[in-house]
Amino acid sequence: MPLSRRGREMPASPIRRLASLADETKRRGVRVYHLNIGQPDIPTPPEMLDAIRRFREPVLAYGPSAGLPETRAAMADYLGGLGTPVAPSEVLVTDGGSEAVLFTMLAVCDPGDDLIVFEPFYTNYMGFARMAGARLTPIRTRPEDGYHPPPIGEVERAISPSTRAILYCSPANPTGTILRRDEVRALLDLAIRRDLFLIADEVYREFVYDGVRHTGVLEVAAEAGALDRVILVDSISKRFSACGARIGFLVTHNRDVLDACLRFGQARLCPPTVDQVAAAAGYRVLSRYVPPMIDEYRRRRDRVMEEIARIPGASCARPQGAFYVMPRLPVDDADAFATFLLRDFQHEGRTVMVAPGDGFYATPGAGRDEVRIAYVLNEDDLVTAMDLLRRGVEAYRARRGL
Amino acid sequence: MPLSRRGREMPASPIRRLASLADETKRRGVRVYHLNIGQPDIPTPPEMLDAIRRFREPVLAYGPSAGLPETRAAMADYLGGLGTPVAPSEVLVTDGGSEAVLFTMLAVCDPGDDLIVFEPFYTNYMGFARMAGARLTPIRTRPEDGYHPPPIGEVERAISPSTRAILYCSPANPTGTILRRDEVRALLDLAIRRDLFLIADEVYREFVYDGVRHTGVLEVAAEAGALDRVILVDSISKRFSACGARIGFLVTHNRDVLDACLRFGQARLCPPTVDQVAAAAGYRVLSRYVPPMIDEYRRRRDRVMEEIARIPGASCARPQGAFYVMPRLPVDDADAFATFLLRDFQHEGRTVMVAPGDGFYATPGAGRDEVRIAYVLNEDDLVTAMDLLRRGVEAYRARRGL
Repeated sequence: MPLSRRGREMPASPIRRLASLADETKRRGVRVYHLNIGQPDIPTPPEMLDAIRRFREPVLAYGPSAGLPETRAAMADYLGGLGTPVAPSEVLVTDGGSEAVLFTMLAVCDPGDDLIVFEPFYTNYMGFARMAGARLTPIRTRPEDGYHPPPIGEVERAISPSTRAILYCSPANPTGTILRRDEVRALLDLAIRRDLFLIADEVYREFVYDGVRHTGVLEVAAEAGALDRVILVDSISKRFSACGARIGFLVTHNRDVLDACLRFGQARLCPPTVDQVAAAAGYRVLSRYVPPMIDEYRRRRDRVMEEIARIPGASCARPQGAFYVMPRLPVDDADAFATFLLRDFQHEGRTVMVAPGDGFYATPGAGRDEVRIAYVLNEDDLVTAMDLLRRGVEAYRARRGL
Repeated sequence: MPLSRRGREMPASPIRRLASLADETKRRGVRVYHLNIGQPDIPTPPEMLDAIRRFREPVLAYGPSAGLPETRAAMADYLGGLGTPVAPSEVLVTDGGSEAVLFTMLAVCDPGDDLIVFEPFYTNYMGFARMAGARLTPIRTRPEDGYHPPPIGEVERAISPSTRAILYCSPANPTGTILRRDEVRALLDLAIRRDLFLIADEVYREFVYDGVRHTGVLEVAAEAGALDRVILVDSISKRFSACGARIGFLVTHNRDVLDACLRFGQARLCPPTVDQVAAAAGYRVLSRYVPPMIDEYRRRRDRVMEEIARIPGASCARPQGAFYVMPRLPVDDADAFATFLLRDFQHEGRTVMVAPGDGFYATPGAGRDEVRIAYVLNEDDLVTAMDLLRRGVEAYRARRGL
C-alpha cells in the first residue's frame, strides 16, 4: 500500500523527532534538560486556570466555528489596544497558531504554489507547507546581519509566477530577530507591487528586549492603506505560557481570506471550548502578567548569551526578542550531535536536549553547525543545561576527532 | 489578490453555513430549535468535567504530539475491550475526529488522488478532501436499500488509477445505516484486491438500536489478517456528549501510516491538554454512562420517525444507528426551504433549523429534497421541533405554490 508522497516526505519536527530517544534516556535514569522546545516553565496565569475550574456548563458543547464571541472580543480588544482597530468579526480563533498558519497557507496557495520565507524559519512552516502541497522559497539570512532580511531587491528576485505570499515571523523563532518598521514596510510594498499576500507571525509580540519597539504588521498596513493585503497569525501559547490550551488566532481585514478560513474552520467544527474560556480570562490580566515575565526572559537571554560565550568555537547573534537563540557550534552535524547528547553523553547523571539547526532551513545542507536553544528554564537550570551543552560539545568533538 | 482555488471552492458546511442567519432569527426574538447539528443536549459525564476542574498543574503545557500517555492508554484499553487488541502506540490522539480524517487523507492521498465514499456521506469529508487537494468519488446509496452499499462490483467499477482508499462511516452520519459484517468484509477484500486503504469512521459505534450488532473494522481486519490495511477514525465527541473537547483519535496497525500521521501531528505540536485529561476520565465511566444514553436516543429515534410519518409527502428510511435521519420532504430545494424556515417562517414565536441535504452529496443536484435531522433534543423539544417542521413544509409549499 503506497503512502502518499507528502506522507512519505513530511518532515519529522526537529523539535520533537528526538522525543522518544529522550524518553529512553530518562528511563536510563539520566535527567534531560529540555532546551529543544519552546515550552516555558513560567506558571500560566492562575486566572486562566481558575476559569477552567469554574467551567459550569453541564454539556461540553461545540462552540461557533470562528470561536466563542467572548474570546474573539478579547482578542480584538487586545489588538485594538496596540493601535489598529480590529473587529471581533475579523478574528478567527484556531487550534493553536499552528492551525492559523495551515488555514492561511490553504487559503492563499494551491498545490504547487510557493511562499517566500526567511531562513532559518520556524520549522513547522515546512510541515504545514507539505500538508498543503505548497513549497517554501527560502531567502537566506545570516548571523552577521543579525538575521535581518537582505535588501528588498534580493527578496523580489526570488518571486516566481507561482509565488503567492511572503511569510515572516517577528520577533522571530528561531533567531529572536525583530524586523524594523522600514523592513516591514518594504515587504508590504513589495507584496503590493507584486500582488502577493503578506503573512506575519507575531506570536512572540511581547517578547522584546533592550528597549526595541516591535512593529506590528497591522499598524504598517493601516498606514499604507493596505489592510486587505495582510494576514496576522497569533497565539496565546507563549504570551500566557499556555501552550497546552491550543488556542491561536488569525486576523485579517480581507473578507475573502476570512471567509475561506471560516469555511476551513467549519469543516473542523470549532476550537476547544474550555480552552477558549481560559484564553479570554488571560487577556483580562495581560497587562499585569506580561511585564515581569519579559524581565525574566531578558535575564535568561543575557545568561544564555554569557554561557554560549564560554563554549570555545561557538558564536551567536544576540537576539532582541522571542526566547530562542540559534548559536553556531563547533560540530560537523548538529543532528548527530543532538542524538549524541541523548544517547552517548551524560555528566553526573544529566544531559541536555537541543533542536538541530538543519530543520529550520529549506536549503539542503544549511544549519548543520547550528542548534536552536529555547531559554525556557529558570536561571539555575539554564546555567546547568548550558554547562552540559559546553561539556557535550567537548565530548562530541573528542569522539569525532574534531 | 487571488485566493487559492481551494479557498474559493471550499464548501461552507451545510450544518453551519446558516448559523449567522439563525443568529439573526434569534435576535428578532424567535426561538430556534436546532435539528441541524449533532450537538447533543445529554449532560457530559460529570466525572469528565470534574477531571477538568481538578487540573492542578501550574503550567498548561504542551503534551506529546501523539497524545498524553494516559489518554492513549484509555483509548487502547477501550478498543481492546471490543475484541481486537490495540497497543497505546497504535493510537494517535487528534484535535477531534476532524483532524483524524484530515491526517488520514493527507497520509494516503496526494493532490489529484481520490477516495471512494458512499453518498450521502458526512458532509465534512468533502471539506477535508478539498483542503487536502483530493477528490471524492461518490457511490450512491438509496433510502429504499436502507442506504446500504450497492453490490461490491459496482463499488469496484468506481475505482480508478488515482483511487487510494475507500472511506465509510458506520453507524453512518447522516443516514444511521450500520454496515453488516459481510459488507465490511467485502469492502476489505476489495481494498486488498485493489491495493487500497480502508478507512472506517466509527465515531457513533455505541449508537446502535433494535438489537443490531455493530461490526468494527478492526475485528474484520484481524480475522482477515489485514490489520495493516485499515485506518480507524474515532472521537469522544458523541460517545461522551463532549463535542467541545475536540478530542478524537486515529488507530492503525500500519506503521507507515501511523508514522506519517505522527509527523503531521508534530507540526501542530499536540492536542489540547486539559481536554485529553477529561477524555481519559470519560473512558473510566463509559460502561455506566453509555447504556442509558442509547436508550434515550432510541426513544428519540422512534419519536422522530412517528413525527416524520405525520408530514404529508415525507418519507424516510428507518435508521438503526447514530442519531440522524435523512428524510425526503415534499420540497423543491432543501436549501431554500432551510433558509425559509429561519427567515420567513415562525409559529408562535418559534422555528426549526435543519441541514439541507445537498451538502451531504458530491453528485450535483442530489439531495435537494432531503434534509438531515439530528435528534439531539429531549423528547418534548423534539416533538415541538418536528411539529414546526411539518408546519414549515406546509407554509413553504403554500408560498412556492407546490
